[in-house]
Amino acid sequence: MTVLEVPGDSPFGTSNLPYGVFSTADAGPRVGVRLGEWVIDLSRALGEECFAHPSLNAFLAQGRARWAEVRGRLAELVTGEVPDDAVVGLGAARMHLPFEVADYVDFYASQSHATNLGRLLRPDSVPLLPNWKHLPVGYHGRSGTVVVSGTGVVRPCGQLGPTGGPGPDFGPSRRLDIEAEVGFVVGVGSEPGSRITPAEFADHVFGVVLVNDWSARDLQSWEGAPLGPFLGKSFATSISPWVVPLAALEAARIDTPAQVPEPLPYLRGGGRWGLDIELSVAWNGDVVSRPPFREMYWSPAQMLAHLTVNGARTRTGDLFASGTVSGPTRDQYGSFMELSWGGSEPVTVGGRPRTFLEDGDEVVISATAPGGDGRRIGLGEVRGRVAAAR
Amino acid sequence: MTVLEVPGDSPFGTSNLPYGVFSTADAGPRVGVRLGEWVIDLSRALGEECFAHPSLNAFLAQGRARWAEVRGRLAELVTGEVPDDAVVGLGAARMHLPFEVADYVDFYASQSHATNLGRLLRPDSVPLLPNWKHLPVGYHGRSGTVVVSGTGVVRPCGQLGPTGGPGPDFGPSRRLDIEAEVGFVVGVGSEPGSRITPAEFADHVFGVVLVNDWSARDLQSWEGAPLGPFLGKSFATSISPWVVPLAALEAARIDTPAQVPEPLPYLRGGGRWGLDIELSVAWNGDVVSRPPFREMYWSPAQMLAHLTVNGARTRTGDLFASGTVSGPTRDQYGSFMELSWGGSEPVTVGGRPRTFLEDGDEVVISATAPGGDGRRIGLGEVRGRVAAAR
Repeated sequence: MTVLEVPGDSPFGTSNLPYGVFSTADAGPRVGVRLGEWVIDLSRALGEECFAHPSLNAFLAQGRARWAEVRGRLAELVTGEVPDDAVVGLGAARMHLPFEVADYVDFYASQSHATNLGRLLRPDSVPLLPNWKHLPVGYHGRSGTVVVSGTGVVRPCGQLGPTGGPGPDFGPSRRLDIEAEVGFVVGVGSEPGSRITPAEFADHVFGVVLVNDWSARDLQSWEGAPLGPFLGKSFATSISPWVVPLAALEAARIDTPAQVPEPLPYLRGGGRWGLDIELSVAWNGDVVSRPPFREMYWSPAQMLAHLTVNGARTRTGDLFASGTVSGPTRDQYGSFMELSWGGSEPVTVGGRPRTFLEDGDEVVISATAPGGDGRRIGLGEVRGRVAAAR
Repeated sequence: MTVLEVPGDSPFGTSNLPYGVFSTADAGPRVGVRLGEWVIDLSRALGEECFAHPSLNAFLAQGRARWAEVRGRLAELVTGEVPDDAVVGLGAARMHLPFEVADYVDFYASQSHATNLGRLLRPDSVPLLPNWKHLPVGYHGRSGTVVVSGTGVVRPCGQLGPTGGPGPDFGPSRRLDIEAEVGFVVGVGSEPGSRITPAEFADHVFGVVLVNDWSARDLQSWEGAPLGPFLGKSFATSISPWVVPLAALEAARIDTPAQVPEPLPYLRGGGRWGLDIELSVAWNGDVVSRPPFREMYWSPAQMLAHLTVNGARTRTGDLFASGTVSGPTRDQYGSFMELSWGGSEPVTVGGRPRTFLEDGDEVVISATAPGGDGRRIGLGEVRGRVAAAR
């Protein structure tokens, strides 16, 4: 047995305990919990078969009471002794996609981001469209290309739109971008024809990941009317390997900004589900932005209520992301499109002026949140490096 | 042993042999093949475990050579004798969703439909947007709400857009519509970063289903800018229970209409994958339209080439639909939005003037195609009845 001592200021201390799926040289993917610089092998530590799976889905489907029970047992375990064979050093663990993604939805819930994109993409009209303050605008993305942090991202090819000739150009994207987002993982789904109210949010959503919604702006702007983003997004969406349970984010809960006009009744109530998560975007090691999730206009509880108001069922493994997290000031913008103002105002990275992504660039989005006791918990990071187009 | 004699003019004769998943009073869901008014239980007829599954996915993943081998064995079986315990009357078979849907994509490949919708929804601008003749416009839909024919469709609630007051109305959709489409089922997926050329279409796509892409036009028009359809579509998408293999559609292959301007190289070649499928839309028993798939501007091989040109991987069970099939004349329009010209020119159904769907309405989309020898094969039907909003 081993006592795992974690420094009091660790972002992965005993009040966090996020779940992931890891493998080691001697054993395949299974569920683990991160504590400090260790991974605790849950099937060995708790002796339960549902943690021997290569995804969290079986555990996610068990529901809120069970999530609380396991969290309680973990809290006892990590303040006592852990079986030796259940402890793996973080460096020996290879992380995998933590859950099988069912449906993936991406929202557009930052007023600053929606306003900035409106200014950049539709300069002749009002930046924020009439629907935006009445509903969390969103669309479905491609589940099959959600990948775990560390997976290389191949620069996508496609139609770039006309740039002088009569038809569109074709080739590797020249305006490859990131979007720093927070994603929410559905544990317990809902039946066809039923709705999830904001008050039922924590009965259905298990936890939170960080998301990089890689975006090829040239593909996106040419293809996107009238049915929205498609190939400009569908090549890759990266998520962080550690799913932080909502239970670890109690101290991060805040009110959303004031919502005026008042939303329709189905979007009201349910308690405070704004979250005081501080993101950080590092571009080749230089932190270029610190997007504040607390500025998001729509809460994730409102997003889920909206997603299901038409009776659409949800399933274990559904992922919905917030959309780009951008705050009101430039050093808080969550995409390079906004940071470089459409490519017209370069930012300095590694001493050079930069606009969009070059081959070899690496982006790391990380985040922390209040964890209680004045400490901060970590949401880990989502990392990706751009590989040349094939 | 039983000899199954099928009339020569049956749309489900020996040249069709579509696959589905059925259950009976005494046994759970498993794979069957339709012949005339029978279902042949494949795990019993062929003695193979992969057909004992409650979905086609295991068989789909086995690839084109295997699909051909099984089709060859079936052709022998149905012209000879079938084991008694492998024969089920169609009336005793309950049909299920034939495959687990991975990602669902919906295209917009009919020029008449795109032009009609452009005229109706954007009357002040050019109906066909500049990108439309350069790429098959599409978007991702919700996989989790794809349901099998016969499943009731609950009228969705949602934001209907402002109709006089300062904010949007809320309630059951008042403009519930159908879209008659053809869907394509991916058997063998593709790796991340790779493309599927039009010439590789039949190596990846197993077969065809009929699709009713139920659409709440009032939700859709209010929510849809700038990210496209979301709740206006995500409540339900119905598909036919029988997947007709591409191998049964050889005689239906035709050229697409002339494509001017010539598409980019990645969308060229691969042989003729236009399909001469004749759809029929019955509204409470009255046939109101006969949409011709042969008029579709983009072929399904071009749709798949486009879907993967950015390197997006595909998976077994991916479904991509054509978008509404509408021909150039009104009796060929594949949605009620078009048939009733936005609700302004009612059509006669059951002797009454009608525009959008009322509670209790039933819509049946069926189709046939040339099957060789001057005969026609059936694609079956996708049926759905509207239930009142909850």
